[in-house]
Amino acid sequence: MTGRVTIAGLGPGADDLVTPEVQQAIDEATDVVGYIPYVRRIAPREGLTLHESDNRVELDRAQHALRMASDGRRVVVVSSGDPGVFAMASAVFEAVEHGEPMWRDLDIRVLPGITAMLAAAARAGAPLGHDFCAINLSDNLKPWDLIEKRLRFAALGDFAMAFYNPRSKSRPEGFARVLEILEETCEPRRLLIFARAVSTPEEEIRVVRLRDATPEMADMRTVVLVGSSQTRMILRQGAPFVYTPRSVPE
Amino acid sequence: MTGRVTIAGLGPGADDLVTPEVQQAIDEATDVVGYIPYVRRIAPREGLTLHESDNRVELDRAQHALRMASDGRRVVVVSSGDPGVFAMASAVFEAVEHGEPMWRDLDIRVLPGITAMLAAAARAGAPLGHDFCAINLSDNLKPWDLIEKRLRFAALGDFAMAFYNPRSKSRPEGFARVLEILEETCEPRRLLIFARAVSTPEEEIRVVRLRDATPEMADMRTVVLVGSSQTRMILRQGAPFVYTPRSVPE
Repeated sequence: MTGRVTIAGLGPGADDLVTPEVQQAIDEATDVVGYIPYVRRIAPREGLTLHESDNRVELDRAQHALRMASDGRRVVVVSSGDPGVFAMASAVFEAVEHGEPMWRDLDIRVLPGITAMLAAAARAGAPLGHDFCAINLSDNLKPWDLIEKRLRFAALGDFAMAFYNPRSKSRPEGFARVLEILEETCEPRRLLIFARAVSTPEEEIRVVRLRDATPEMADMRTVVLVGSSQTRMILRQGAPFVYTPRSVPE
Repeated sequence: MTGRVTIAGLGPGADDLVTPEVQQAIDEATDVVGYIPYVRRIAPREGLTLHESDNRVELDRAQHALRMASDGRRVVVVSSGDPGVFAMASAVFEAVEHGEPMWRDLDIRVLPGITAMLAAAARAGAPLGHDFCAINLSDNLKPWDLIEKRLRFAALGDFAMAFYNPRSKSRPEGFARVLEILEETCEPRRLLIFARAVSTPEEEIRVVRLRDATPEMADMRTVVLVGSSQTRMILRQGAPFVYTPRSVPE
């Protein structure tokens, strides 16, 4: 059997952030599977079938990829960013664990990509230059209480933070609650970065203090970064640099 | 003035994990600055000067890069992994903040790369597929108490964790203490991944339960990943898959 499933990260949007390893996997694929906007990033060619699917059908999509690989096809499952960060890799392994026993012995590989928080951090300077947490703010698949709990422990530990999926259509009030919790746990001068659609033509980077942050600053295409208590802003003629120093004083 | 400083991430080791964006910056550089093993990854060519420097001189290196850019040179500061994750980007911005006022208005850019924890996670499956923290275990630049505090809050929040610099020559006992704290705060079956030199010929991936983990499993080239309480292992003929499910039950 020569079939395989490769779960590949396309990075945040720009083609020059796709690794050569991922490009090669796509070039060798017979089938590409993924959420519509990610599959549309793949150039059509003879011998390649593109399978677009809607959002929130990750498990169906994963099973489809595994079935095709069992039939000998070279399937690439595309994710934006890194497939292991709030993306398709976990869904594929869930499908493997609970699916056909033979799926376990397929050739399954994950190819890392540039995840949104690191692309966003790079644009702003180095806000994640010290210890940090990544938290998915969507409560589609976990209880909201767990999100609040993690947020509070991250603030108590004085971690910098990166929030994925800060604001969804189905639950717009969640991010307002997150800002309230930050206001309870962090000083008003704490630095936040709202990074929207990084590396695409729609990119927007906004640096604000916590006291000036509002829920409307985030939408579904935004990653929000929160500095630690040590994070600093360097003012200059253009956009400011934001960075977290490497050292923490005793 | 046409000088610039580009802080570029070379990824964990393999050439096919270097983004085209980073490769282009290197192709256009007049000078490449960095820690010896990273500069050695750059192919020499006419018109390019390679400046190797020792470990632990990050601030000197950053100032050197900024001075050369002020003189009109196109300088690339190379980091392994992602330059914003426990690497050179913060050092450059520290040098900017405390250095010559004109340095603030230089063209300074950070180009993201594949950071070690995500390359390691991809090799093992998707252990960071849910909320996670990244912690630098080196106490060169921060008090050891802060490391312990962050570790405990990360465990209380049931985050998956990634540890950079788990074991240094100068303080070999630190990682043993980290394992003790994990034993106090996590169940003995908790999954750990020791990922050494990922994507290089010396790559070694080891999956163990916390009860079987020992300090000697980590060295200076290892990234250690710790699952959350939900992280699962899928046994199979080859190396097992380790993943953290996307959902957490109520």
